[in-house]
Amino acid sequence: MAKSYTIGHYLVDRLAELGVRHVFGVPGDFNLAFLDRIVEHPDLAWVGNVNELNAGYAADGYARLNGIAALVTTFGVGELSAVNATAGSYAEHVPVLHICGGPTVDAQRARRSLHHSLGDGDFEHFLRIQREITCAQASLTPANATREIDRVLREVLEQRRPGYLLLPADVAQVPSYPPAAPIPSSNDASSPGALAAFREAAAALLDGKRPTVLADLLVHRFGATDALAKLLDAGALPHATLLWGKSIVDELDPNFLGIYIGANSEPRVREGVEEAEALILAGVQFTDLISGFFTHRVDPAKTVDIAPHESTVAGELFAPLEMRDALGALAELIADRERPPAPQARPAAKPPEPADAEPLAQASMWDLLAHAVTPGNIVIAEAGTSFFGLATHPLPAGVTFIGQPLWASIGYTLPAALGAGLACPDRRVVLLIGDGSAQLTAQELSVVLRHGLNPVVVVVDNDGYTVERAIHGAEQHYNDIDHWDYAKLLSAFEPTTDPLALRVDTVGGLRAAIEKAGAAQDRLVLIEAVVAKMDMPPLLKKVGEHISEANARK
Amino acid sequence: MAKSYTIGHYLVDRLAELGVRHVFGVPGDFNLAFLDRIVEHPDLAWVGNVNELNAGYAADGYARLNGIAALVTTFGVGELSAVNATAGSYAEHVPVLHICGGPTVDAQRARRSLHHSLGDGDFEHFLRIQREITCAQASLTPANATREIDRVLREVLEQRRPGYLLLPADVAQVPSYPPAAPIPSSNDASSPGALAAFREAAAALLDGKRPTVLADLLVHRFGATDALAKLLDAGALPHATLLWGKSIVDELDPNFLGIYIGANSEPRVREGVEEAEALILAGVQFTDLISGFFTHRVDPAKTVDIAPHESTVAGELFAPLEMRDALGALAELIADRERPPAPQARPAAKPPEPADAEPLAQASMWDLLAHAVTPGNIVIAEAGTSFFGLATHPLPAGVTFIGQPLWASIGYTLPAALGAGLACPDRRVVLLIGDGSAQLTAQELSVVLRHGLNPVVVVVDNDGYTVERAIHGAEQHYNDIDHWDYAKLLSAFEPTTDPLALRVDTVGGLRAAIEKAGAAQDRLVLIEAVVAKMDMPPLLKKVGEHISEANARK
Repeated sequence: MAKSYTIGHYLVDRLAELGVRHVFGVPGDFNLAFLDRIVEHPDLAWVGNVNELNAGYAADGYARLNGIAALVTTFGVGELSAVNATAGSYAEHVPVLHICGGPTVDAQRARRSLHHSLGDGDFEHFLRIQREITCAQASLTPANATREIDRVLREVLEQRRPGYLLLPADVAQVPSYPPAAPIPSSNDASSPGALAAFREAAAALLDGKRPTVLADLLVHRFGATDALAKLLDAGALPHATLLWGKSIVDELDPNFLGIYIGANSEPRVREGVEEAEALILAGVQFTDLISGFFTHRVDPAKTVDIAPHESTVAGELFAPLEMRDALGALAELIADRERPPAPQARPAAKPPEPADAEPLAQASMWDLLAHAVTPGNIVIAEAGTSFFGLATHPLPAGVTFIGQPLWASIGYTLPAALGAGLACPDRRVVLLIGDGSAQLTAQELSVVLRHGLNPVVVVVDNDGYTVERAIHGAEQHYNDIDHWDYAKLLSAFEPTTDPLALRVDTVGGLRAAIEKAGAAQDRLVLIEAVVAKMDMPPLLKKVGEHISEANARK
Repeated sequence: MAKSYTIGHYLVDRLAELGVRHVFGVPGDFNLAFLDRIVEHPDLAWVGNVNELNAGYAADGYARLNGIAALVTTFGVGELSAVNATAGSYAEHVPVLHICGGPTVDAQRARRSLHHSLGDGDFEHFLRIQREITCAQASLTPANATREIDRVLREVLEQRRPGYLLLPADVAQVPSYPPAAPIPSSNDASSPGALAAFREAAAALLDGKRPTVLADLLVHRFGATDALAKLLDAGALPHATLLWGKSIVDELDPNFLGIYIGANSEPRVREGVEEAEALILAGVQFTDLISGFFTHRVDPAKTVDIAPHESTVAGELFAPLEMRDALGALAELIADRERPPAPQARPAAKPPEPADAEPLAQASMWDLLAHAVTPGNIVIAEAGTSFFGLATHPLPAGVTFIGQPLWASIGYTLPAALGAGLACPDRRVVLLIGDGSAQLTAQELSVVLRHGLNPVVVVVDNDGYTVERAIHGAEQHYNDIDHWDYAKLLSAFEPTTDPLALRVDTVGGLRAAIEKAGAAQDRLVLIEAVVAKMDMPPLLKKVGEHISEANARK
């Protein structure tokens, strides 16, 4: 075995060790020999995507649920098509290893005018591009390959961001040896001194006060969701999340205040956060769309701010200090106190009331859809109408919510739903996407069907880019799109399974479609939900006004 | 008027001045206000594409015929989706101006965590990416905008490569003044001294010899096609092109030797080029796929090599010297000689002979299609089976042939056909593409239909990536794709025109389909041409073997 073991084998063994089970990508001549290593590996499956951008989006969706993903492309033409997806993974802290097959080391050194290059003999153009959007990169050679593979993977795991390996076609075939030990974890990176000092400072700041906790996405990314739950439970603390981290806590918990969106928050949430005696921020990064365009109000003097690798207490820095350890220390502090009486349970949300005959509207649609979500579902909402329409509705515990409010690339969620479905075959994906967004990446439904996945895909049919209409040019034709027949689109993909396509334009129609989708658990169900062109969720309207003002000439 | 005239107006006026008539792209919040300038301009039309990669490909196809194109995207998410297309334009010398709408100058300076950014306050990540794939870039401010717009456009015109403008949303709205004079042309860049010295050296080298001319793509890109034709005519010189420049000369001319592909050439062409008494190279760049993997044999000692801005004679450099001027000087030299007798006219190519009942095969298919091409057609052949299948067949004069053998990005040609069709509404586009390639960008057919274009689209249905099978993993499932029904796909796009979809698997079927396509001059005609999975054009087989060997570990 050792004789035929190559660097390609080493790399796929590392992927499997870290929990990768599916590899996304598109074949190309520089990666073909490496693809043989993937298809023959007992723990890996090759998922051929329709194009590389879709592959990158699918890998991102997979990594958000699986903890890590791998993407394989070919030099130049392949890798550059995925740049937008990789940049999104960087912005949103998603660990994806991008393996790009390249020309042989000798051909690169000879600066030959090869296909898929710019023809100028410079084979580092694309490596320099990848440097801008990945946390670690390596150009592999026979001598450095295993060391560099391990270094890049360690960084990907530690920073929770994408990494890039340029794997020349010949290097993948160089004899090598299996890894001697697993990639070391970074769990023990906290300094005991920093932790003790942090505990002391936090105890002083929190003394006699009942803090509110505002948590967000990075808690999930840095594996501290359990530590957060323990802290919340220890003190029955009032808490909120931002939109980005929606679903990292149980939204039906009586101590859950709601979603904090700066000045766009409901008064109860805003008061709970901004007027708290003390505030614990956990994994929070305020960006424009989730902070009501920076209208959040946080007083550093009364705040403990827990970041991935460091924390501050009233502005004083403690590092190195891992998020999990900081949350654990706070939970211990809070647990020593007397537990406050449980607050009144929140009244259960009323079931949506509109009459069946009413035309479907944004208000009724998101309410109905939020009520239809069941524990275990993975809800993926496209930036724009879907994200801002759904995100303010509470979802049951055990639901994972995925959005992309920082990178906000339209078309992202459709391939991401493929990745999520492959990562969690036992959970049903509910994809909410506008027609303007769906068209960018629609052909990936062909791959969803190939794999026999069962998502519920709601395409909001409102004739164009509604999020752009909210910002500028409401009636300009550049915000219009062509109308498509999505049922015919599914049938053009010649599915061997039996997808169900429905089109609804009334409240009753959507209710019936939801019921049919519930009954058809094993099938892809596509619901075209027709609403008026200028109908917008209230939060989207506000966001549109903010953006319009932000982009105006002062 | 001057009061409401802005930098946005200035930019669209420059585009119109240079001959841009259609602007490709996708709306996004940072470019919306600028799109108003496009839609209101009397000489410009906005073409909303389905996604940015398709927009970039369409702009590339447009620029190859129109001489220049413009592409508009939004910051981050939009521009990065087009990176592959722009890199292709760079590699293949296609002048496309990429205008990217960005956050306001103040927001960038304040390093805010904005949507479509990486959230780290660095707004130059993507500018650094664009630097790798464009010949000139600018980040526009109120103060530098008009100067920088002109500088980037001048470079785009001179280098015949893409350029990039980051246009912040507010800068587009800053008051400005119309251009005072047109962008200066670079026609007079040759040094009279260099030209005279070149003429003398060339006269010495060519004295008493009948040179063969080997011309390629850059002759077209640098506007020297007429100058080349004059040279060829002056001496009735034997000549050939490479695959890249196919169609820049009349392939039925009796002095046309054929296509030179290094060791893969027909013997007559190889001999004519490699054993010529003297050789004139015009606009030639030898890259792997067009040179039979660098098996070309050119003796510098007997060669005049004419590059875009400089020439060499037996290795001696003359610069600055524009291609047109060098070709003109050679034509004068040759015209002074006695014109040789006209060679025997080439026998007309025999019409394809296979019987109607024969199953369709690569050999019969390309022969039939090449014979069906008529003067005026624009033939676009996708990298892979289509390119290598068709390119060796002679095409009539007046046909423009488009391929992408250096960048070779699969999926490119389908949106490029949209761009070509818009650039030349009076010429019919014939698109030849494999099913594996078509799926990457298939939804752009929706935009082709919206504009009522009439291409003939031949989709070679052979169940996957045949070009990859030729290289490695012939039977591996990563080279398989899902089978689609392209007629249903067209109908899913709800065309208001009436496309014709045909499926053929015999010689007679293709003959009949070609006839129907000829009769349906105003309609999009899609022909699914079914051939066996492992059937390959002979040249593709050779190329596959070359690549396979080049990528192997030595």
